[in-house]
Amino acid sequence: MIQPQSELDAYAALAAGAFRFFKTTTVKERAAFMHAVADQIEALGPELLDAAHRETALPLPRLTGEKTRTVGQWRAYADAVAKGLYVEARIDTANKEKTKNDIRKYSIGLGPVLVFGAANFPFAFSTAGGDTASAIGAGCPVLVKAHPGHPETSRIMAAAITAVVEAWGWPPGVFSHIAGDEVAGTGERTGAYLTAHPQVKAVGFTGSYQGGKALLDIAARREEPIPVFAEMGSINPVFVFPQALEQGAETLAKAYIASLTLGAGQFCTNPGMVIGVKSTAFDRFKQALRAGIRDVLPSAMLNEHIYTNFERNKALLSAQPEVNIWAEADTPAAGSQARARIMETSAVNFLANPVLSEEVFGPFGILIEAASVDEVAAVAAQLKGQLTITLAATEADMDAHKTVVDRVKDKAGRLLFNGMPTGVEVVYAMQHGGPFPASTDARFTSVGPDAVKRFVRPVAFQNWPQTHLPEELKNVNALQILRTVNGRLTAEDIS
Amino acid sequence: MIQPQSELDAYAALAAGAFRFFKTTTVKERAAFMHAVADQIEALGPELLDAAHRETALPLPRLTGEKTRTVGQWRAYADAVAKGLYVEARIDTANKEKTKNDIRKYSIGLGPVLVFGAANFPFAFSTAGGDTASAIGAGCPVLVKAHPGHPETSRIMAAAITAVVEAWGWPPGVFSHIAGDEVAGTGERTGAYLTAHPQVKAVGFTGSYQGGKALLDIAARREEPIPVFAEMGSINPVFVFPQALEQGAETLAKAYIASLTLGAGQFCTNPGMVIGVKSTAFDRFKQALRAGIRDVLPSAMLNEHIYTNFERNKALLSAQPEVNIWAEADTPAAGSQARARIMETSAVNFLANPVLSEEVFGPFGILIEAASVDEVAAVAAQLKGQLTITLAATEADMDAHKTVVDRVKDKAGRLLFNGMPTGVEVVYAMQHGGPFPASTDARFTSVGPDAVKRFVRPVAFQNWPQTHLPEELKNVNALQILRTVNGRLTAEDIS
Repeated sequence: MIQPQSELDAYAALAAGAFRFFKTTTVKERAAFMHAVADQIEALGPELLDAAHRETALPLPRLTGEKTRTVGQWRAYADAVAKGLYVEARIDTANKEKTKNDIRKYSIGLGPVLVFGAANFPFAFSTAGGDTASAIGAGCPVLVKAHPGHPETSRIMAAAITAVVEAWGWPPGVFSHIAGDEVAGTGERTGAYLTAHPQVKAVGFTGSYQGGKALLDIAARREEPIPVFAEMGSINPVFVFPQALEQGAETLAKAYIASLTLGAGQFCTNPGMVIGVKSTAFDRFKQALRAGIRDVLPSAMLNEHIYTNFERNKALLSAQPEVNIWAEADTPAAGSQARARIMETSAVNFLANPVLSEEVFGPFGILIEAASVDEVAAVAAQLKGQLTITLAATEADMDAHKTVVDRVKDKAGRLLFNGMPTGVEVVYAMQHGGPFPASTDARFTSVGPDAVKRFVRPVAFQNWPQTHLPEELKNVNALQILRTVNGRLTAEDIS
Repeated sequence: MIQPQSELDAYAALAAGAFRFFKTTTVKERAAFMHAVADQIEALGPELLDAAHRETALPLPRLTGEKTRTVGQWRAYADAVAKGLYVEARIDTANKEKTKNDIRKYSIGLGPVLVFGAANFPFAFSTAGGDTASAIGAGCPVLVKAHPGHPETSRIMAAAITAVVEAWGWPPGVFSHIAGDEVAGTGERTGAYLTAHPQVKAVGFTGSYQGGKALLDIAARREEPIPVFAEMGSINPVFVFPQALEQGAETLAKAYIASLTLGAGQFCTNPGMVIGVKSTAFDRFKQALRAGIRDVLPSAMLNEHIYTNFERNKALLSAQPEVNIWAEADTPAAGSQARARIMETSAVNFLANPVLSEEVFGPFGILIEAASVDEVAAVAAQLKGQLTITLAATEADMDAHKTVVDRVKDKAGRLLFNGMPTGVEVVYAMQHGGPFPASTDARFTSVGPDAVKRFVRPVAFQNWPQTHLPEELKNVNALQILRTVNGRLTAEDIS
């Protein structure tokens, strides 16, 4: 869909205008607004689920769960915002020996945030997803660039948010929905155009490395560079250790296959790599993988584009030297369905060929057999940044492999002791984001209330009069938020 | 000074090795180390002050004060680190209805940090300055690129830190001092070489826009982009309002001159611009500026390079059309001394000529006379990002100029209600950093304990066994830090 540049400029100007309004809102007001959005989304009926099912091929139970999660995100982020966690008020009064001035700091929004809808989570990481919720929680107007894979779903979600904006009498620029993919006349992508737009102050993105990196580069070349938080996925390595294998090679294989093929493998946290040292127990694990994957039924991918990429990347990796098909689903795929596959290679070959570290988005894994623990440590050391790394291990395995355990800590945002990485809980302790290229800035998360932090900046007020201070920083703590007053966390008023 | 590439690589490798060690330290251990560094610096005698005075021309009283401040920074940051503020532990146990897994998150260092010494603060923002202290507090080894303007001062400070590293038996790579400016053979700047080095994971810089932007660009072009926090200064506008002028045009002029010429104007927060609406009171202010600046004695600048830049930039701005010398110190300058000057222009001319918004590092200001409040608002709206903006105002002035007050909030990290921006207090509430180009990332500060945040990233541990969790996340809270446990801040153990 083609959109005139003037229309995009108008949306950006509306957003910039709405930012002026947003700065006057308190954390409690934004939180209440977010709860209203949650209610509005919750009330959406089958129209939403049907559109998403039709547009993404995701099964209805999955979409129902994702809708619940999306509503939960708005509520959880709202509650954290209401507590004042992200304004992070710090007050140093002038009455101490060392402090000459009264200085009070809190965080405000960066300005209009451009959010890209993601293909694989039409609700939770798209138009009304976590990026939108956290930007609004931060006090930033949002421009959503709709994902072209689910335009109708996006339209319904946007209408839900807009309905709340209207009902509350907030300026329309608080939330704008950009449906176009291409700028009229120039042929430029609307997302690229808006990332370069002077009125856009930050970007949230979930998608491919190519997509995220392109945005990062555009943002860096701006006259005023802006932060881009791009979550670009990873291969989420699983390290299997000897004792864990001894105790349950087959169970582990079953869990791995379930995670690898869940939702046609279309999760950022899909465990696309598994590595262990050659042993009889590792052989049992391998055989169980081979046997287990045969029964996996092909399932439809999100869209034709993703399916085509899957087939191309699968073929590319499979064609590398000294890489063999180890396991494959029996049933051939039809249409845009993905057929699960696991390739096998040696650690030496994996280390030598960077192509083998590339993500194949879909139900595709690479099984690496190392000749020694040293090889496993070498692979750990060479890994690029990941969202997650899983250690299938006993405590004794951990004790016996300190070098590997130590090395993986540098490589991921979330480290699992057993279990599988798919399933990202929306809690304070979640870290979804990792060293580059898993994400563009490992200092932030895109899941959990802390996602709000990406879009705020601190402003300090020195000797400011009470009447002109924001509510969050006044002596009377009417909002009852926790504040660091002269180094001490308290919700008390300042006398 | 020329340094072989192999030596730089060796320092980077040492730092990477030390990072392995650093990750095993607790917040309490790092804090104790930082206090030991503070003690060591405090114990340095006249040797340090004499070297700095000789190398920077800064007067001894100023240097004595800066030394105290530097020691205070190490202690204040240490205490904040010890409290666990920057590991920001978040624990969600699996015993709640909604949370399936036990997830625990805390923040670790990013890895080796490259710190650039600054010319204008040979102690507080240089080798043993705030960037070094905050990186070490974060758990990051530091590579200091010494400022060439004060090599001996830098060497003494580096030796002080190294003495503590040795006394504590910590790996030498925890702190390295790079004295060279140029890489042997290639002629590349050592700072540029190290910013591009794969083992360097973040950069801290205080200096010019050209310097900071160059580092930012190098970091963005790396295969693995890294965060650069560059504080690049600004012109720190002062807005003078009618009632404040009525009440004390002369006092205000005196305060402005004192701040503008303090330390030969060589502060990042030097108020290089002042703006007001034409009125009789504004005329009084202008006359007082003209009269007051005559008595300012020329003072030696930090070094020949800075003096040359000052003269060049002063001449460039002074030569712009419709800009006139309004006020100048009577006494001519000698050698590398700076002679204070204030230029005058109209708001219309200021808006039309971007050269007039450029920082002239030194005792140089631009006085802008606006014809109306609307022009003042237009100037506020056009301003680039600033470290500080000062409103010389009464509360009634604030009420009467809401548009201007609102606009400046988008433009600076610290907003002053009266007073002058020089003098950056080292407190929790400080924000030193502002929208680009004042700094490269307005989400962080480089002064105050919160400076530590620049160099950490969160890591989540899912279902990790107690024995392998870092001390900060174990059930038993032996470090007695505040943690967010199931959404509630507490220092209690988890039962």
